[in-house]
Amino acid sequence: MKVDGQNYRTIWLKDDDPGVVQVIDQRHLPHRFNIEDLTTVADTAVAIREMHVRGAGLIGATAGYGMYLAALAAAAGAKNTFLPAMEVAASTLKATRPTAVNLQWAVDRQLNAMRSVRGNDQWVSIAKTTATKIADQDAEFCRRIGEHGLSLSESLSKKKHDGTVNVLTHCNAGWLAFVDYGSATAPIYAAVDKGIDVHVWVDETRPRNQGARLTAWELGQQGVRHTVIADNVGGHLMQHGQVDLVITGTDRTTRCGDVANKIGTYLKALAAHDNGIPFYVALPSSSFDLTIRNGIHGIPIEQRDATEVKYICGQVDGQIHEVLLMPESSPAANYAFDVTPARLVSSLITERGICAATEEAILALFPEFASIEITEEESQDA
Amino acid sequence: MKVDGQNYRTIWLKDDDPGVVQVIDQRHLPHRFNIEDLTTVADTAVAIREMHVRGAGLIGATAGYGMYLAALAAAAGAKNTFLPAMEVAASTLKATRPTAVNLQWAVDRQLNAMRSVRGNDQWVSIAKTTATKIADQDAEFCRRIGEHGLSLSESLSKKKHDGTVNVLTHCNAGWLAFVDYGSATAPIYAAVDKGIDVHVWVDETRPRNQGARLTAWELGQQGVRHTVIADNVGGHLMQHGQVDLVITGTDRTTRCGDVANKIGTYLKALAAHDNGIPFYVALPSSSFDLTIRNGIHGIPIEQRDATEVKYICGQVDGQIHEVLLMPESSPAANYAFDVTPARLVSSLITERGICAATEEAILALFPEFASIEITEEESQDA
Repeated sequence: MKVDGQNYRTIWLKDDDPGVVQVIDQRHLPHRFNIEDLTTVADTAVAIREMHVRGAGLIGATAGYGMYLAALAAAAGAKNTFLPAMEVAASTLKATRPTAVNLQWAVDRQLNAMRSVRGNDQWVSIAKTTATKIADQDAEFCRRIGEHGLSLSESLSKKKHDGTVNVLTHCNAGWLAFVDYGSATAPIYAAVDKGIDVHVWVDETRPRNQGARLTAWELGQQGVRHTVIADNVGGHLMQHGQVDLVITGTDRTTRCGDVANKIGTYLKALAAHDNGIPFYVALPSSSFDLTIRNGIHGIPIEQRDATEVKYICGQVDGQIHEVLLMPESSPAANYAFDVTPARLVSSLITERGICAATEEAILALFPEFASIEITEEESQDA
Repeated sequence: MKVDGQNYRTIWLKDDDPGVVQVIDQRHLPHRFNIEDLTTVADTAVAIREMHVRGAGLIGATAGYGMYLAALAAAAGAKNTFLPAMEVAASTLKATRPTAVNLQWAVDRQLNAMRSVRGNDQWVSIAKTTATKIADQDAEFCRRIGEHGLSLSESLSKKKHDGTVNVLTHCNAGWLAFVDYGSATAPIYAAVDKGIDVHVWVDETRPRNQGARLTAWELGQQGVRHTVIADNVGGHLMQHGQVDLVITGTDRTTRCGDVANKIGTYLKALAAHDNGIPFYVALPSSSFDLTIRNGIHGIPIEQRDATEVKYICGQVDGQIHEVLLMPESSPAANYAFDVTPARLVSSLITERGICAATEEAILALFPEFASIEITEEESQDA
């Protein structure tokens, strides 16, 4: 997508140096647009954990490139240490963030690719090819999500007397969360390209404000009409007919259609349901976790540091400052995701089309998932 | 309640100068504790509009004292200009904020008191008495709300194996929102006084963060255990059994029990309902508006300036800075309240006891309200 009129992806191999992975460092957007060089698997682990990059698809793609950087380093060592070194790299990457399943998926895809070949040269080249494939596929799947999701805006626009479709989205499931296009935003970009008048209500998405900082910025860069709102506002807008459609992304969706996504998504799904407004979740197939049925009990929910709630970064006089928002002595808790039960999800928008949030419909669209074993354990609640 | 161990109310007449009303200026809490002098009705109007003071009860009490300051000034003029001057003052005060009905209630109570007497001396003394009565009554009604609400924590505590009652509250309906005790907090303070182990989940309450700034501060000052959370978190906590009870305040509750309160309250009520958790609203009778049945269509919802969403104030190095949170060029919308339909409200806690959120139950507890005429107009939606 475009930044100041120039096309970008969120991650790529540096033009003249294939030992360097470059990413848009998203920590200081929209105030600063920085490109960061990652040269080791440790760099990529830090970039994921500290959220220089974030979002289901981009976490997966970054992990894929991280495994490639690990392969580059390991190939310089003895042959019999290569696969053990890759397994260490895999563990490091998988431990960075617990909820987005794309991370595990990408790392396992690289490990399987490594195990299928022998010889240092092949290892590095297969790791590079696999990382590139993961990124390209992510972009292509999001593009197709846009094609499939376009029909939703088209039919809603025809029903509205002014033709305007008001979409509410939570967090950033835009191109910044993937390699390109985004999941929740892909149908929006596709509709705008078709000339449909779309206006987006952007939840600011506390505590890290991915909506206010990232979604607002990327929509603005593509010229899409939008309004930022506090996370508290969506229910009121829905009560007053100002939302036609909700689309969010997901970090992990279970076999039965339970959706883990940014904390607060569940509240918007409840409000959509209460007001008869369709609530869609857009995802590439890499965000499904077929090993789990019940998302509320089965999906691990990341708890991040309380400082992300207590302090916030913003700009003043061209400088970025972190300011304290509450009594220093008060504790804060920081749950990063919640789970929206499938009963509140109107449908899922995938790269293969739209399907109901049910095991039957998901397996009908992705029959190859049927063989995946359910490993669900009992409730993880304390 | 206590500030650094010393007892305060939120508003009072200055000890040695009854021409000065003093308030706690809440704008820079918790970082700075300032006391502000108000000497004219214009001062009180600014203090209400710019939220030096806020909260249903305190807005009413401040307006009551504002009418007293107006009477002091008007009594210096010709006798036949007194009542017209009071009517101008009343209009000025009523125009400051549209949603909290306590404001209209307090101003009308002062106007009625003025109209019932003749003579400058009497006017000033009746205005002073009425302002003091409004404030004292607010404090006393909140104290009684605490007594009536105490039973909720007592019975929940007995059912819990650890005895801990987890209460979630939204915004600040604490003593800072009233003259003393608070509405939603009064049952909490009463329970803690009785030795019940209460822990409060404090919604930060964007965009003005009355939860993170004010509720956390006042609970900390009274030694009540609490944890600040982003507004997005409550649903997740409820899904996982970490909330036993929700108590909020209200800025206006209709004849049929629809509750206008800080934006986002409706989302928490939906989540409480979805998880079978009791959702209580605490209010003195001055927050009822018997002229309206349907809150969603009948209660005017204040829209405040977008800068409150785009910028936030916080502390860094002992200084308070306002920082930009999003692209400067992106629009933002700032709806200050929403309406929770009565069907989602378990019960109302009033100074006369607990009642269902229905016309029948409200009128049974407050039979004097039965004669109030319904003036409800058609939908105010555009």
